[in-house]
Amino acid sequence: MMKRTHHCAQLTLAELNSSVSLLGWVDSIRDHGGILFIDLRDRKGITQVKFDPQVNAALAAQAATIKPESVIGVDGVIVARPDGTINKTLPTGAIEVDATALTIHNLSDTPPFPLDDIGGDKVNEDLRLTYRYLDLRRPKMRKNLQVRHRAAKSIRDYFDSQEFIEVETPALFKSTPEGAREYLVPSRIHPGEFYALSQSPQQFKQILMVAGVEKYFQIARCFRDEDLRSDRQMEFTQVDVEASFITREDVYRLFEGMIKKVWKDVLDIEIPAPFLRMPFVDAMNRYGVDKPDMRFGMELTDLSATFKESAFKVFQGTVASGGSIKAFNAKGLADLTQGELKALEDIAKSLGAKGLAFIKAEKGEWKSPIVKFFSDAEKAAITEQLAIEEGDMVFFAAAPWEKACAILGRIRLEAAQLLVKRGKMTIRADDWKFLWVIDFPLMSYDEERGGYAATHHPFTSPVPEDVEYLDSDPKRVRGQHYDLVLNGMELGGGSIRIHQPALQKKIFEEVLKIPADVVETRFGYMLKAFTYGAPPHGGIAFGLDRMVALLCGTTSIRDVIAFPKTQKGQDLMAQSPTPVTAKQLKELHIQTVIPEVKL
Amino acid sequence: MMKRTHHCAQLTLAELNSSVSLLGWVDSIRDHGGILFIDLRDRKGITQVKFDPQVNAALAAQAATIKPESVIGVDGVIVARPDGTINKTLPTGAIEVDATALTIHNLSDTPPFPLDDIGGDKVNEDLRLTYRYLDLRRPKMRKNLQVRHRAAKSIRDYFDSQEFIEVETPALFKSTPEGAREYLVPSRIHPGEFYALSQSPQQFKQILMVAGVEKYFQIARCFRDEDLRSDRQMEFTQVDVEASFITREDVYRLFEGMIKKVWKDVLDIEIPAPFLRMPFVDAMNRYGVDKPDMRFGMELTDLSATFKESAFKVFQGTVASGGSIKAFNAKGLADLTQGELKALEDIAKSLGAKGLAFIKAEKGEWKSPIVKFFSDAEKAAITEQLAIEEGDMVFFAAAPWEKACAILGRIRLEAAQLLVKRGKMTIRADDWKFLWVIDFPLMSYDEERGGYAATHHPFTSPVPEDVEYLDSDPKRVRGQHYDLVLNGMELGGGSIRIHQPALQKKIFEEVLKIPADVVETRFGYMLKAFTYGAPPHGGIAFGLDRMVALLCGTTSIRDVIAFPKTQKGQDLMAQSPTPVTAKQLKELHIQTVIPEVKL
Repeated sequence: MMKRTHHCAQLTLAELNSSVSLLGWVDSIRDHGGILFIDLRDRKGITQVKFDPQVNAALAAQAATIKPESVIGVDGVIVARPDGTINKTLPTGAIEVDATALTIHNLSDTPPFPLDDIGGDKVNEDLRLTYRYLDLRRPKMRKNLQVRHRAAKSIRDYFDSQEFIEVETPALFKSTPEGAREYLVPSRIHPGEFYALSQSPQQFKQILMVAGVEKYFQIARCFRDEDLRSDRQMEFTQVDVEASFITREDVYRLFEGMIKKVWKDVLDIEIPAPFLRMPFVDAMNRYGVDKPDMRFGMELTDLSATFKESAFKVFQGTVASGGSIKAFNAKGLADLTQGELKALEDIAKSLGAKGLAFIKAEKGEWKSPIVKFFSDAEKAAITEQLAIEEGDMVFFAAAPWEKACAILGRIRLEAAQLLVKRGKMTIRADDWKFLWVIDFPLMSYDEERGGYAATHHPFTSPVPEDVEYLDSDPKRVRGQHYDLVLNGMELGGGSIRIHQPALQKKIFEEVLKIPADVVETRFGYMLKAFTYGAPPHGGIAFGLDRMVALLCGTTSIRDVIAFPKTQKGQDLMAQSPTPVTAKQLKELHIQTVIPEVKL
Repeated sequence: MMKRTHHCAQLTLAELNSSVSLLGWVDSIRDHGGILFIDLRDRKGITQVKFDPQVNAALAAQAATIKPESVIGVDGVIVARPDGTINKTLPTGAIEVDATALTIHNLSDTPPFPLDDIGGDKVNEDLRLTYRYLDLRRPKMRKNLQVRHRAAKSIRDYFDSQEFIEVETPALFKSTPEGAREYLVPSRIHPGEFYALSQSPQQFKQILMVAGVEKYFQIARCFRDEDLRSDRQMEFTQVDVEASFITREDVYRLFEGMIKKVWKDVLDIEIPAPFLRMPFVDAMNRYGVDKPDMRFGMELTDLSATFKESAFKVFQGTVASGGSIKAFNAKGLADLTQGELKALEDIAKSLGAKGLAFIKAEKGEWKSPIVKFFSDAEKAAITEQLAIEEGDMVFFAAAPWEKACAILGRIRLEAAQLLVKRGKMTIRADDWKFLWVIDFPLMSYDEERGGYAATHHPFTSPVPEDVEYLDSDPKRVRGQHYDLVLNGMELGGGSIRIHQPALQKKIFEEVLKIPADVVETRFGYMLKAFTYGAPPHGGIAFGLDRMVALLCGTTSIRDVIAFPKTQKGQDLMAQSPTPVTAKQLKELHIQTVIPEVKL
């Protein structure tokens, strides 16, 4: 019934004089001296179709009624394009179809925005989302969906080849109000009770290990009611993996294999493995962040020893009180403008710095608000330690260690962008610098709450040789946690878990100080499960959306999700959320409470 | 760190005298004259491990402390089992491991129920669900999870090979209160507004066709707040497919290919194709149901002509008023007990019958409450039409056509079960009788509402030659709908869709009489999308859970879902749903309204 002999990227001179039938969308219509040329597009490509009124006046007249983006079927004969009109950028650029019949399946109104990549990118995103069915026709968006499919397929093929089985876990889970904000789903059968949409299959995958599945994976939809940003959506897709009898080394090897396969399958790129590994402390010391972008240097230097006995009291006092003096040399950035410097200062202040000390090495001298306090020996020392040369810009931070690192870590990224803008540095999206960040502290001290909190989650197993410090010095205990970092982005993370019920209970109750009854309500079933033969196990989870965005070279995950919500959580195309009927609310035993002033 | 040289189904005499390391669960422990034998189990199989106190007393003593289901690691040497102790049913039955070292990773308490297939099957399902991590260790359940993984992988491989791409669509969709009952999710950002959990990606997949994706599939989680049964869950998994420029014939071929591949990959069975096709009217006439179980005959016969002018007024009157007389011969069921007959009558009555007329051909005569009203000619006619012989049992229904068919359709299934019970009929779970049921009416008249309703959904395209009756005689219009039926179960269904905005609007407003403003609110965006170049398209959807259940030979989809909810919608293991905190409700702008008497 629907006759289609070829797709629109297929025909070449090899099919000369063949009769063909094509189906697709009208990409463009051009009139050259009375002859109509239609670029017919399907998901594979474009073929040029010719309607010549000299040959068939009625057919040409019918073709003239069509507007771009209409859906048509064309029968015709393949002819060679005349010399000088061959399009070498198209696979089908040597031929055109001499139309003999035309079926109009669906006429299109004029689209509200241009559907090419460049024009479409300039369009307001809300408009693109409202007409997502048009936005998705753009070549870039079509390619993004293809890349996503290919990446997910590659991941599934990989884990299948490694004898992992995909197990689906429920989206409707129980509420765990202590964690990230969650979506609730009222129960009709149980008045006053709610399900929560699963934020991650973490507990189910550990239970699957207790169930003896041994090798589990899932590409799972997860839900988090957090404020949305370009790299966050209400619902997101997580590649979730867990295995029994596995060590950290096994996880690294397994995931490096997956990354190699995905990059090969999707981009035809060989990623070298094993990946670099870096302890959390080193990452902070050298890059000021736990997800370093390794595509460029500008590492931080610790000057605490240099300024330990300095006459500059701000630095000396910081070191004396246990803090750190950190600095880095933004080579060649001495031409920083006042406005740019002010912006960096503001960023530093937003991270808790009092200001942003610097040295600008310009015209043979150091311009700096602080250098006058330095001794000649100190100047000589930092000149050497930071390799300061004419044209350089050095930034300092003096604060407690983690804060000093974090401030300069952020300034380092900003400085790199300024250097890129000046053409003094190149950071390529396709320079793939993978890195395992390891040896995170198991617990972090939460100043606000006045107690320890799990750095990642309470199921992370301590490094065995640190277990003895759990009572005496919890912050000294490293967790068997690992993050996979790519170009300054955290792709995923995971850990070897606790499988001993006594240790898990101790972490909950004695270290994290969660009341015993709360532990029982929230995690009682897991503790119980661990008393029935729980194997040692561990795993990892990472965001598919973010990985696909990186593969597609886009910074917004909305560009790799077919139907994303806006940053206000709205579906602009289908129009949701919406009010619902009183009958629906009654059935669910709830009523709405609208605040006086709408948020 | 975790040393494992082999899995537990791997070792044979080929590894004699090798040193091995195994990891797994203690399946059983036996003491034979002081020597301990442990069957060590992992997800692949079982290996026997021997601890001989004569060889290593300390090790044997340590082994004696272990209880079944504990997790251990064993080092040892492969030795041949003595003659007479070889277990030919196990791949590893010729050898055993002479243990040299033992690590206890996790001790197990005594499980609350036996973990073998036969013992476990007898256990109350609530107990199995509470301890799902133990239930899933049973060989049958482990196999079910494997089959599910294999089936899903096979489906994905198939559609990928056919150049379909998997596109993820949102779970958080808009409320459409007119359809099946849905789960609502209150919005925090938009007070008083709600998302609904997607019941199916139907609208999104049609939008993807408008977007030019051409070939879409997805294995998607769907949600329906319906009362649960053995073949229904709150959340279920749907294989969802849609393609552009496709005809019904293309869909049949595509899906037959998929079924062939899945059955081959999972069960190594060749399913012959093409499948039988049967119009809805024939399915009702012959089997009394739109999803006939074709593994046995006992087809219905239409006796309306025979009794058209009968002296038996009940039959004659039914025919005169446009109804039908249907009957079938349950061959060999004349030994039906009074109790069984009563049960069948009750079923018939529950379907709207006044009773259940029958003829029991027993001891050379017909026992029947109605046969005394039949003429000799009528008796002769039905003897021939129904091939009545000694020992047969014939059932009758006299009612409007569809009701008469439906009553006997159900009685036919019940009678078959009675014959199976008597050993007079065999119905094999692995007798795969696939069938396309086609030519459904597009609209059904809803007596209650007093208007037409879409038989399947309002997007189904009418059969082109029937479009002309849309206004004059809607019930005469057949839809381009198809159901894939297997052994009395509807595996899936779909249709060629409407892609013309004017026709879709006509169906909504003029045929289904949906008010224009409701159409605009619910479907306005689809109608709009159809004005921007919508290709002809169609697709299908089917339940993965049910298909996997059939592949596993189980009747309950709960057996093929890792963590199902109970029929009351509860997760007995993790304990949900639950009450939530006042803070959570406040953030979501709702409050609960508990009915006075708890349901």
